[in-house]
This record gives sequence, C-alpha cells and structure tokens, in this order.
Amino acid sequence: MKVEGVDYRSIWRDGDRVAIIDQTRLPYEFSTLRLSTVREAAHAITSMQVRGAPLIGATAAFGMALAMREDASDTALDNAVEMLAGTRPTAVNLRWALDRMSRRLQPVSATSRESAAWAEAESIAEEDVVINRAIGKHGLPLLREIARRKGGAVNVLTHCNAGWIATVDVGTALAPVYLAHDEGIDVHVWVDETRPRSQGLLTAWELGAHGVAHTLIADNAGGHLMQRDVVDLVIVGVDRVSAEGDVCNKIGTYLKALAAYDNGVPFYAAAPTPSIDFSIEDAFTEIPIEERDADELLFVQGTNSRDQLERVRIGAEDTQAANPAFDITPARLVTAIITERGVVTATREGLAAISAEKTR
Amino acid sequence: MKVEGVDYRSIWRDGDRVAIIDQTRLPYEFSTLRLSTVREAAHAITSMQVRGAPLIGATAAFGMALAMREDASDTALDNAVEMLAGTRPTAVNLRWALDRMSRRLQPVSATSRESAAWAEAESIAEEDVVINRAIGKHGLPLLREIARRKGGAVNVLTHCNAGWIATVDVGTALAPVYLAHDEGIDVHVWVDETRPRSQGLLTAWELGAHGVAHTLIADNAGGHLMQRDVVDLVIVGVDRVSAEGDVCNKIGTYLKALAAYDNGVPFYAAAPTPSIDFSIEDAFTEIPIEERDADELLFVQGTNSRDQLERVRIGAEDTQAANPAFDITPARLVTAIITERGVVTATREGLAAISAEKTR
Repeated sequence: MKVEGVDYRSIWRDGDRVAIIDQTRLPYEFSTLRLSTVREAAHAITSMQVRGAPLIGATAAFGMALAMREDASDTALDNAVEMLAGTRPTAVNLRWALDRMSRRLQPVSATSRESAAWAEAESIAEEDVVINRAIGKHGLPLLREIARRKGGAVNVLTHCNAGWIATVDVGTALAPVYLAHDEGIDVHVWVDETRPRSQGLLTAWELGAHGVAHTLIADNAGGHLMQRDVVDLVIVGVDRVSAEGDVCNKIGTYLKALAAYDNGVPFYAAAPTPSIDFSIEDAFTEIPIEERDADELLFVQGTNSRDQLERVRIGAEDTQAANPAFDITPARLVTAIITERGVVTATREGLAAISAEKTR
Repeated sequence: MKVEGVDYRSIWRDGDRVAIIDQTRLPYEFSTLRLSTVREAAHAITSMQVRGAPLIGATAAFGMALAMREDASDTALDNAVEMLAGTRPTAVNLRWALDRMSRRLQPVSATSRESAAWAEAESIAEEDVVINRAIGKHGLPLLREIARRKGGAVNVLTHCNAGWIATVDVGTALAPVYLAHDEGIDVHVWVDETRPRSQGLLTAWELGAHGVAHTLIADNAGGHLMQRDVVDLVIVGVDRVSAEGDVCNKIGTYLKALAAYDNGVPFYAAAPTPSIDFSIEDAFTEIPIEERDADELLFVQGTNSRDQLERVRIGAEDTQAANPAFDITPARLVTAIITERGVVTATREGLAAISAEKTR
C-alpha cells in the first residue's frame, strides 16, 4: 500500500538483511529498520516493531533466513526455531511459519540452507499478500450489499489493527474496506483505540494514508454507537481461530462481539487459513493468553508540546496493573469468518469445508 | 476519607469561598482550589476539576451560594441556575440540586438569600454523605456473602470513579468496598482505566490511599477476566437511572454489563435516589448523551521522565475522533440497584417502592 505516494510492504528482503517498518514509531514517524540477525528479528517481534499475526509469521520466516546466514547447522536451525517460537505465545501464524520453514530446511544440506530459507520466507510473504487480496475479494460483497441496501456511508467498526501493516500487505480485516473504498463505495471506519498499546492509532494512520474516512473512538464507545445504530458491521482480524470457530484476537474483541450480538450488528472475523488452528478444540483452555508488561498500560507514548516523542506515566508510582493481551470470542457471537477461500460460518462444519479443501 | 492521614471531603465551605480538590491534577498531585464566583464553580464542573454525579450536584449547590453572594437578585438567581445547568447535560443530580436550591431561594428575600443558599448547599453536601454511608451499608452484605461462600479475596470490578471523590465523601459504588475492607473482608478491585479521561486512575489513587488492594486494567480486559472467573461482582455508579431501571453511566459501562450477563457475574449499580429520574420513561431517547471534546481522547496527561506533568498527543495531527461520554445499560442486564433505601430490582416495580417511600 502507499505511504506518501510510494508503494510499501511491511517487510521485505534488502540484500542480506530484512527491512521492516518500525511500528513502535507510528503514527508519529514513518521509519524503516534493517534486521541483520535472528536475534534482531526476535527482538522486532517481542518489542512489537512488527505486530499482527500474519506479519509476525512472515518476520519469523525471514528471521530463519537471517539465522541460516549466520550459521546453517542443525543445532543453529533448532535454536533459531526455539528463539523465534518463544517471542509471542498467542498467534498461531508464528508457529505455522516456523514449522513450514523447519520442514523446508531440515532435509536441505547446510550449504544450501540460507538460499532455501530466503526463498521460502519470500514465498510465505508473497502468499500472505495473495491470501489477503482474496479475503478482501470475499469480504467486499458484504459491504457492497449494505451500501446498496441503505445508501449513504457504510459504517464499519474495527478493533486493533488488522490492516496492511499487520500483514505483509493489503491487510485482513481492512482488506474488504480498502477494496470497497477503491471501487467507490462510501465507507467510514470507527477505529477502536485498542488500549493498552493503542494499535487503533496505526489503523487510523493507514486508513488516512489511503484516504479512507475514519473516526478514532475510545474502546468504551463501540457499544453505545451500536445502540445508536451507526455501526453497520464489525470486522476484526484474528490471532487464532479454534476448530470450533472460537476467535482469539486482541483483548477487548469479545466485548465488541457481545455488543454487536446484542444490537443485531453482523460481526465478522477476517482469518487467513494459516490462523485457523484445527488442533485447538477448546479455545478457552488450550490457547495461551499472553500476559504482557504492565508498563504498556501505565505508560503512554505521544508527541509533546515541542513535537518530540515522549513517554509519560499515567498512573501513580505504586499503581499495579494487569495486561492480558488477548481474549476469546465464542463462535456463537461470530456471524461468519471471512477467509481467502470464502465466507464460512464460525462452526466446525464451516471450518471443516476449508480443512477439506486444504488437505485436498 | 483520609489523604496522607488527614480527613478530607471533596468539597467544603471555606469562609466566603468553596474549597475543592483539583481532580484534573490527580493522581499526580493532591491540590485544593478555592472557588470565589459562580463562574468559577461552573468552570470547575465543565473542566472536570470536580466530576461524578453527586459531587457535580453539590458543586452546583455551592455555586448557587457563590452566585447569591455576588448578586442576590431574582435575575441573578435565574442566571446562575441557567449557567450551572448548562455545564453537563447528562447527570440528573445537577438538575436536582439546582431545582432544590431554586425552590429554597425563590421565596426568600434578597437580603437573606446568601445565608439561605450556604445553609441549603451544606445540607445537600451533608445529605450526600449520609446517603452514601447508607448505600455502603446496604451493599456490604453482597460482599460479605461472597466472602463467606467462596473464601479468599472478593474480586470487584468497577468502571470509572464512583468513589469518595466522585461524591462529597464515602462514594457510591465504592462505599460497600470501603465498608467491607474496614470490617476486615479481603477485597480486591479490578479498576477499569476508563478512557478517554482515565478516571480509573482516580479510583486506583483513592483505593490505594485507603489501603484497598486493586489492579488497574485496560477497559478491554474486563470481559476476559470474567470469562476466567476472577470477577465476583461488578459495581458501578450512575449518572442517571430511568423509571424503568435503565442505567446511564460513563461510556463503556454497557460493555461490562454485557460481559457480566454473559458470564453470570452479578452487575450492580449504586444509585443515590437523587440520581433516579422518574420523569424518564425511555432512557435511550430522553437522556441527552454529552459529546465531549475529541482532544480528551487525542491527548493524554502523565508525568514525563523529569517527573513533570505533561500532555502528549497520541494521534496523528489530522486524526479525527468522537467522544461520547456516557452510555445506557438496559435494565435487563442489571442484577439490582443499591440505593440508600435498600437493594432493589432494576424494574419499574423495584424503583416504585423507593418512589412511594420518597413521597411519603
């Protein structure tokens, strides 16, 4: 997607290094970073310089290429997988990308591993873009139908950032929004701030850069807006979907799903099939929920009166905080799941159809 | 309640002036202000130096005393009511306190109005304290019963600040918590941050000052915590309750009520009877929802690395935001309403019993 008129992806190979956008500086500053080692790739994930399940997966894949460049031995391969797998526990794409890299690299001789790793990582990145375009294509009719039926702007509410910078390009939840906007549908997005890390600011930034109308709101506001009938549909991304259709996503997603259900607003999760974890039967007991540092809640970053980036402490010195990063939305609250293979119900049957196609 | 060992109320008469705690400086700094004119009283309300429905009511009453000190004419009386009534549209206590002051002052000669106004304002403040102690007394058995049944800490979740600094003293939602703590019940409070103004920081501050265990959480986290069964009950304050038992309170309350309902967690609203508006039949159409300045969402205040209070902009320069300040929780999601006259169902019948007593 475009940033100041230039086409970017959120991650790409740059010679022997991996280039990323430093998302911890957004929306204040657009800057790119070069990663040279697997340790830097792991740090980019834990520090959330890159975030979003699909981009985390791609970064882990490129991290494996950096690892193989440093040391292509079997031990180094195992160590790199272990280091990268430990960066974020919740997203399944991370595990999926590492499994795929392992399967590809293990049978290859050490001398060929680096080039094989670069090729496989680039395939993963490329496939992510293809997947997201397909999610957009399958989600677009949902917006088109609302536009046709009601006239005026189609009001989408989204939580967190599942836009192009959460993926390699195009986005998941925002893919249908971009496609709708590009074909001339009047679309407006209510953007949840998404505390504590305020990924909504990233969503506002990328929607603004693409020219899509949007309004930032507190995470508390969505229910009220649905009661007032100014939300036509909710679309969120996912970190993982269980075999039963339960959706694990950024903390607070569950509250918006409850409000959508209570107000008869359709609630969609946009999920690339690598995010569907058929091994998970009971999302509530089997998906580990990452508990992140309390400082993410207690400190807020922004620009001060001298236009410098500054971090302020919002709580008193001795205030304790808890920071669970994800929650699980039960399938019963999910209208449908938008995948690259079509829109399916959030049920074992709906997902099984995809599974069948997957293993064909 | 105590601040650093000294007993305070949130508002009191100080000679010819009215003393308040400047809540815009909390939790970073505990400082008091003196108001000398009705205009200063109105500004204290709009700028949220004072906030919380009961305290807003008391401040308006004291503001009337300041007005009568400046000019005790009929015109001045009408003007003062009009100025103060326009400060915040949602809380009913404001209107209630002004009506009561008007009724008291209108029949009085101009020469006696100032002293009558001070006396009436002090009565309103005093009654608020009595009311809140009674709310605490009626709410306490709910916590005592949970402590008896389950053992270990009683986990309360609260939204916004309905503690002693939202009232003249003691608090509404937190009154039962303070009483439980004081009688030795192990109580722990999950404190919603309550963006955009983060009144949860005030709640954390006052709970900490009183020695009550608490944990600050993002507004997004409460649903997840209820799913994990670590919330025993929710208690919130109110800005207004309709004749049908619908609860108007700080934006986001509705989302927590939905989550409580979905997880079988009891959801209580603590409401002094002056907050019950028997004239409101349909809360959704008849209660005006205040839309506050978008900057409340776009800027965040905290202490910087030099320990100075600083305001940072979190959004990009051109980010638009919306800031509805209240929402309405339908009565069907409210387990019961804790009033100074007892715990009643959130129904016309439950509230009618109170109404009958009121008019006795």
